[in-house]
Amino acid sequence: MALVNEHFLKLSDSYLFADIARKVNAFKVSHPQMRVISLGIGDVTQPLCPTVVDAMHKAVDEMASADTFHGYGPEHGYDFLREAIIKNDFAPRGIHLDPSEVFVNDGAKSDTGNIGEIVRWDNSIGVTDPIYPVYIDSNVMCGRAGVLENGRWSNVNYLPCTAENGFVPQIPDHRVDMIYLCYPNNPTGTVLSKAELKKWVKYALANDTLILYDAAYEAYIQDADIPHSIYEIRGAKQCAIEFRSYSKTAGFTGVRCGYTVIPKELTAVTLDGKQRVPLNHLWERRQSTKFNGTSYISQRAAAAIYTPEGKRQVRDTIAYYMQNAELLRESLTQMGFEVFGGRNAPYLWVKTPHGIDSWRFFEQMLYAVGVVCTPGVGFGPSGEGYVRLTAFGKREDCEEAMRRIGEWIRSTH
Amino acid sequence: MALVNEHFLKLSDSYLFADIARKVNAFKVSHPQMRVISLGIGDVTQPLCPTVVDAMHKAVDEMASADTFHGYGPEHGYDFLREAIIKNDFAPRGIHLDPSEVFVNDGAKSDTGNIGEIVRWDNSIGVTDPIYPVYIDSNVMCGRAGVLENGRWSNVNYLPCTAENGFVPQIPDHRVDMIYLCYPNNPTGTVLSKAELKKWVKYALANDTLILYDAAYEAYIQDADIPHSIYEIRGAKQCAIEFRSYSKTAGFTGVRCGYTVIPKELTAVTLDGKQRVPLNHLWERRQSTKFNGTSYISQRAAAAIYTPEGKRQVRDTIAYYMQNAELLRESLTQMGFEVFGGRNAPYLWVKTPHGIDSWRFFEQMLYAVGVVCTPGVGFGPSGEGYVRLTAFGKREDCEEAMRRIGEWIRSTH
Repeated sequence: MALVNEHFLKLSDSYLFADIARKVNAFKVSHPQMRVISLGIGDVTQPLCPTVVDAMHKAVDEMASADTFHGYGPEHGYDFLREAIIKNDFAPRGIHLDPSEVFVNDGAKSDTGNIGEIVRWDNSIGVTDPIYPVYIDSNVMCGRAGVLENGRWSNVNYLPCTAENGFVPQIPDHRVDMIYLCYPNNPTGTVLSKAELKKWVKYALANDTLILYDAAYEAYIQDADIPHSIYEIRGAKQCAIEFRSYSKTAGFTGVRCGYTVIPKELTAVTLDGKQRVPLNHLWERRQSTKFNGTSYISQRAAAAIYTPEGKRQVRDTIAYYMQNAELLRESLTQMGFEVFGGRNAPYLWVKTPHGIDSWRFFEQMLYAVGVVCTPGVGFGPSGEGYVRLTAFGKREDCEEAMRRIGEWIRSTH
Repeated sequence: MALVNEHFLKLSDSYLFADIARKVNAFKVSHPQMRVISLGIGDVTQPLCPTVVDAMHKAVDEMASADTFHGYGPEHGYDFLREAIIKNDFAPRGIHLDPSEVFVNDGAKSDTGNIGEIVRWDNSIGVTDPIYPVYIDSNVMCGRAGVLENGRWSNVNYLPCTAENGFVPQIPDHRVDMIYLCYPNNPTGTVLSKAELKKWVKYALANDTLILYDAAYEAYIQDADIPHSIYEIRGAKQCAIEFRSYSKTAGFTGVRCGYTVIPKELTAVTLDGKQRVPLNHLWERRQSTKFNGTSYISQRAAAAIYTPEGKRQVRDTIAYYMQNAELLRESLTQMGFEVFGGRNAPYLWVKTPHGIDSWRFFEQMLYAVGVVCTPGVGFGPSGEGYVRLTAFGKREDCEEAMRRIGEWIRSTH
């Protein structure tokens, strides 16, 4: 008699963004005349850059002839891509990696979701709060999060990031086994300075903590002193896994490619404390068993980003989104909103007016002006009283959204 | 202190095909003059068909313009593909499915590997033996397989399929929670008749067993009375998940697209026996949390297979491989080998001569004539004494391999 994994039954019925999509669809059905503008889900709107498009056409043509056809690739990705990654994303920052430390994947969501498989189900976890829901939900599914009590999971250490502490999470005063950090941060759009990140590496080394470092938004960093990779910090290779994604860097949300770095020197311990096991090898075993590599065409697309033209084109698109971010930030600030983030990240974190709760503000704004945001509480308890806006829209939609919200605020508040 | 998942330490150091690749590479280095022919790993060699190539170019062009760009798709796949699947793969066989019962993925390996997450870690499992290693290894990783004793896992029921029983697995005489069936079978290339498959559905319904039915090779079925889908059997929707793949159907091993069917009426039970939980919803939750859909381009490629030209072209390629299978079967039989499979499947299962063990025969053939097969024991204990050959090579390579093996056999046996 097949028994169900009952940990799944502890989860809310659906994933945050599925919830939002349902509410937006309900609104659209009842308000067919209103053009909805989404500044909610973090999906890009600009097309792939020409160099990437050319590379994909070329890869498709290769697949059309037996002589150049590519079947199964290496589960961990092609060397042409792994080498381009190391040469362009790490070497210039003084970080030396071996190709076998880079695992190409079909996007950061898969790997941030699955990485927990290689460590014990009962390790304690720490998360900055608010946080990307996948980190929590994937741990609930295997029982690692514990049980839900008053909106908090019993085996999860929440590290609040709010306006009050300048969105800098406090280092725990006790040992936590695994810590998720995402910088530039989703959802708050804030960053950690090198000095702050150093404290985390020091804590992790002292406590044998595994840091799961999500750097999916590093391409949006504008300030020179903000670290792009946790491996810029000495010692991080012994305590951190880093996740990267092309989704936001180069508009690959529909193309599906990213990568995960697991240094050879990174280990976790057996229960008896006697053996240190390299996690690189376990992840290699996991991937070669449960994954067959991402599309050859997607990997060729990713490699094209590292050509001189590719780099320039990708930079232009990021500049476009960051101009959106500036537009949103300035407009909302002028309207009287308290706005965080948006300087080194494509996300803005906005305090709801008069402290109303974030789902209520989401609904008010949707029904008043047809603009979709993401309720902050969807990212965790400390997200209550905030909403997230993304800079990934088209310029004219950002402008129109600001015009609508401006009129609404003037007329009602 | 992060603790490692010690179940991983029970696994052999590497995945079967990684092992083989290493041995083949060692041979190539020491025998640079010998052109190695691989009839080992089940990768295709024929290019994508023209209709698929056209569809991919069109999809790439869509990604080049903001008006037609596709970002995040639905995690479970686009409706254009789900609907084409239902209309073409199931409706003509009298099977009625709803699009929400079809989960498009990046290939069957991911889903057959991950599906175990939605059921309890300690369900007992049953596998036909020999078997595709992913079924076992993915269960070892979460502890479900138990411990290894004399080459067998303690919580796994092995159902031998050998020449002695005509490769028809015997229905267990006791309750097993989950059973993996793969038909047409990898590695033996044998099939189950409708009458045999009916017995399994009957057993599953009587014992509340979950059948994990891998039909990745259904496109190779030639005989009219062999079921293509387990849902051709009445009652199967209440007890079976079916996995399909375009990898072998249409040469998508480098493109990455497949799908999994989980009917709405399929349930598993809570430990207290009081609640029946629909598995479709749990898998939807799993996928929306840990997966972001497969590439838009790959999904458009898959949809093109269902056009009239696409169907014709795919059928031609399958016919090509099945002619290879016939060539291999006839040649090997003439040489005196005992050969199974290869009539409704792209795999041939060949008894090693004089009962020598399968790794030894693998090495002998590699070093004598530079032809790679897969040692049967790599698929499980009942695979000892056999090797697997695949029909996915180029015609001239199949011919050359048969010429070399023929000479070798004549000269040595």
